[in-house]
Amino acid sequence: MTQQKQLRFNAFNMTAPSHNWAGLWSHPRDTAADYNTLDFWVDLARTAERGLMDGIFLADVFGVYDVFGGNADTAIRTGAQLPNTDPVLIVPTMAHVTQHIGFGVTANLTYEHPYQFARRFSMLDHLTKGRVGWNIVTGYLDSGARGMGHAGNRLHDDRYEAGEDFLAATYKLWEGSWEDDAAVRDRATGVFTDPRKVHRVVHDGPYYKVDGIHLAEPSPQRTPVLYQAGTSGRGKAFAARHAEAIFLNGQTRPILARAVRQIREQAQAFGRDPYDIRVFSGATVIVAPTRAEAQELHAEYRRYVSLEGQLALVSGWTGIDFSTFDPQQAVEYVKSNAIQSMVENLTVNSETPIKVGDLGTLSPTGARSPFVVGSPQDVADELISWAQDTDIDGYNLFRLVSPESLEAFVDLVVPELQSRGAYKTEYGAGTLREKLFPGSGPKLKASHPGAGFRYGAPVAGARRIG
Amino acid sequence: MTQQKQLRFNAFNMTAPSHNWAGLWSHPRDTAADYNTLDFWVDLARTAERGLMDGIFLADVFGVYDVFGGNADTAIRTGAQLPNTDPVLIVPTMAHVTQHIGFGVTANLTYEHPYQFARRFSMLDHLTKGRVGWNIVTGYLDSGARGMGHAGNRLHDDRYEAGEDFLAATYKLWEGSWEDDAAVRDRATGVFTDPRKVHRVVHDGPYYKVDGIHLAEPSPQRTPVLYQAGTSGRGKAFAARHAEAIFLNGQTRPILARAVRQIREQAQAFGRDPYDIRVFSGATVIVAPTRAEAQELHAEYRRYVSLEGQLALVSGWTGIDFSTFDPQQAVEYVKSNAIQSMVENLTVNSETPIKVGDLGTLSPTGARSPFVVGSPQDVADELISWAQDTDIDGYNLFRLVSPESLEAFVDLVVPELQSRGAYKTEYGAGTLREKLFPGSGPKLKASHPGAGFRYGAPVAGARRIG
Repeated sequence: MTQQKQLRFNAFNMTAPSHNWAGLWSHPRDTAADYNTLDFWVDLARTAERGLMDGIFLADVFGVYDVFGGNADTAIRTGAQLPNTDPVLIVPTMAHVTQHIGFGVTANLTYEHPYQFARRFSMLDHLTKGRVGWNIVTGYLDSGARGMGHAGNRLHDDRYEAGEDFLAATYKLWEGSWEDDAAVRDRATGVFTDPRKVHRVVHDGPYYKVDGIHLAEPSPQRTPVLYQAGTSGRGKAFAARHAEAIFLNGQTRPILARAVRQIREQAQAFGRDPYDIRVFSGATVIVAPTRAEAQELHAEYRRYVSLEGQLALVSGWTGIDFSTFDPQQAVEYVKSNAIQSMVENLTVNSETPIKVGDLGTLSPTGARSPFVVGSPQDVADELISWAQDTDIDGYNLFRLVSPESLEAFVDLVVPELQSRGAYKTEYGAGTLREKLFPGSGPKLKASHPGAGFRYGAPVAGARRIG
Repeated sequence: MTQQKQLRFNAFNMTAPSHNWAGLWSHPRDTAADYNTLDFWVDLARTAERGLMDGIFLADVFGVYDVFGGNADTAIRTGAQLPNTDPVLIVPTMAHVTQHIGFGVTANLTYEHPYQFARRFSMLDHLTKGRVGWNIVTGYLDSGARGMGHAGNRLHDDRYEAGEDFLAATYKLWEGSWEDDAAVRDRATGVFTDPRKVHRVVHDGPYYKVDGIHLAEPSPQRTPVLYQAGTSGRGKAFAARHAEAIFLNGQTRPILARAVRQIREQAQAFGRDPYDIRVFSGATVIVAPTRAEAQELHAEYRRYVSLEGQLALVSGWTGIDFSTFDPQQAVEYVKSNAIQSMVENLTVNSETPIKVGDLGTLSPTGARSPFVVGSPQDVADELISWAQDTDIDGYNLFRLVSPESLEAFVDLVVPELQSRGAYKTEYGAGTLREKLFPGSGPKLKASHPGAGFRYGAPVAGARRIG
């Protein structure tokens, strides 16, 4: 028997009343309507750290879900990812009440400038003492683009070209502008920073231009741990090149396994170790001491999930207005300018036709990713075997009823996984990057493309530092 | 004898090793080199709240001070406001460890978009439970503009035109998009927000365009308390129209008194009560139990202030390269595209010529604002009499040696002011706005221009909500 692989978990969440299961905020025991208070997030962070999770993965969306029915009324009414806000605001306070847990923070580069963004994320890395990751997204909602005064979103593949340009600019700022020992803080001489060790960055890209020194001193990780979630063709290439952790979904093991294999192969083609990418799948876990109790809980939760709210979300994700479909109708393939990979998984990648009505229920079809209801033993069995069959490293656990679902996972599933050797019993040392890749050191690996932008690096990239 | 006016204080600070007194980070007891840790800010917030201060006023600068000598070397070496970062990141954690104190947060609108910015500041107001203010700045460093890929800064007066446009857009989002009772959180019906009470904002201004609903639900204050610091001609008009609190500097009582009078008169001309604006002056206070000890402390601190670092700051503020001046030379008037009001105060507004060399010392000339060294009685005398002579409401206390200077102020000056009836003995109730204007309620006054953008308001502005 091979040694049991240790699973990794992120608590997947969002600064909104509903995250991926719309309507659960209305459950009598749910506290997610307090998403706009710090106590809600402090409590979450403490629970996740008690469960030795690698991170809290914070989604974000910029815009409203107004594809369903051609307006935002359903999303507004059900609180489906609206109201919402910038997740950076809650991270430092969660870091202040914890010691180990990391933070995967979603930020849409389309509405940021690399110079300003790099400054903010450097400080996040300082304040968290090296526990921050950036989930790189490029947006899929036209409503967000209109809010920002544009006619609509950039085209799908063009968004990734802009992403390449944005990353090149931020790598220069994070990796190349300040040498490691620039900020000497020498009280005797009054020198805070040695100017000879701070270098001007000139970036003249097709989308972004920068001319100046980075405004922040080097943080523990310099470049935050890079997360990515795209699984379309173009998205996979981007992720395979840049990502250190990837978030994938797939409603069956073959769909997920194929996506993981493709990502790892492409990473290798880019000269990276295929296992220098940690792959997380979404997962919905409903656990109770016994299988019967878990099934009862499932039935109870199910009543509070909003069918319409779910369809509003899926319509926004896919760009398809499901309000015009009969619930019994099967989803059919269309070319989408939203999340292309989700459309593919619901159609051409699926062995069986998927009914529109089922997309809105608290069910495996509604989840489009591992969906487990059962005893701690049942859950451990499923999570371990999915990981074995698909070669993923762990799971992003979807928010269900707050805080009880995460607490139940920590209290019931974590000990069961530990007893099987499938989960750590204490945190490793160091930054988020070192926890994800023990022994790696706090900074990007030399084989990562960002490392080529280090000052003095012997590759072409570094020459671009002026 | 008239009733003693109660003074107000903000702790004035910046997420950087040096704020307005460059080099003091090198003092053996100073902890400001830890500006990039949360513990530094948590400690500051607790001390300021112990001192019943109205707020922590957080400066920010986007760019580097590279006017002095034509490069940034001096600013880099002395840590003069560099490294620096976005102050929004530290506010929620300070709010989490306090209950009453407010936060004046500087944000440069030139590099923000109203749609995204309004979302972030709404959430800040939620997370702080209505304790957030926005210090509206438009930037003065060309280096920041170049970092963002522009050739240089907008012209001085043009920056205020853009500011008017930005504020109109954010007022619509903050005041007009959601009705007060839109987010009902009704568990029984599953309605989080009533879509009939959320309104689309269309803003088609000369600088900014917005088309969408505000993404955040109404926060306690809706529009954050508006701070402004401009005292040039165009800056005063902007401030008199929009600001609820103003930060002014002037190195003599007549200079300061005139600026205060002009602001209050202009506010009245805009139909506002002249005392609906709280005016804060910068102040440097070095206090010890006795006058002799305070003078000793002053001599000690003085040795750690960097002359060159100070001149690098003043060069950036004024746009004048003081490295080319003889220290004995007097500052002469030039038309500046940086902080116009500071150039005016150093030249045409000043009764006596100001020597360049004195600008860099820990002295009244270096301070260009009230500078007090003495016993608690001395300090109370000065602060009270300056306020009487100039009609200001209080002071922004410059950071000196952290944390001891603020602690000394709280421990020594606050009780002395209280004993004279010149300072509150407990916090008032409510939001930051209600603490600044007791009895006002948490939202903008009806006479404030932002109130015209409320949904259903009987003035033209509200019609612009689509």
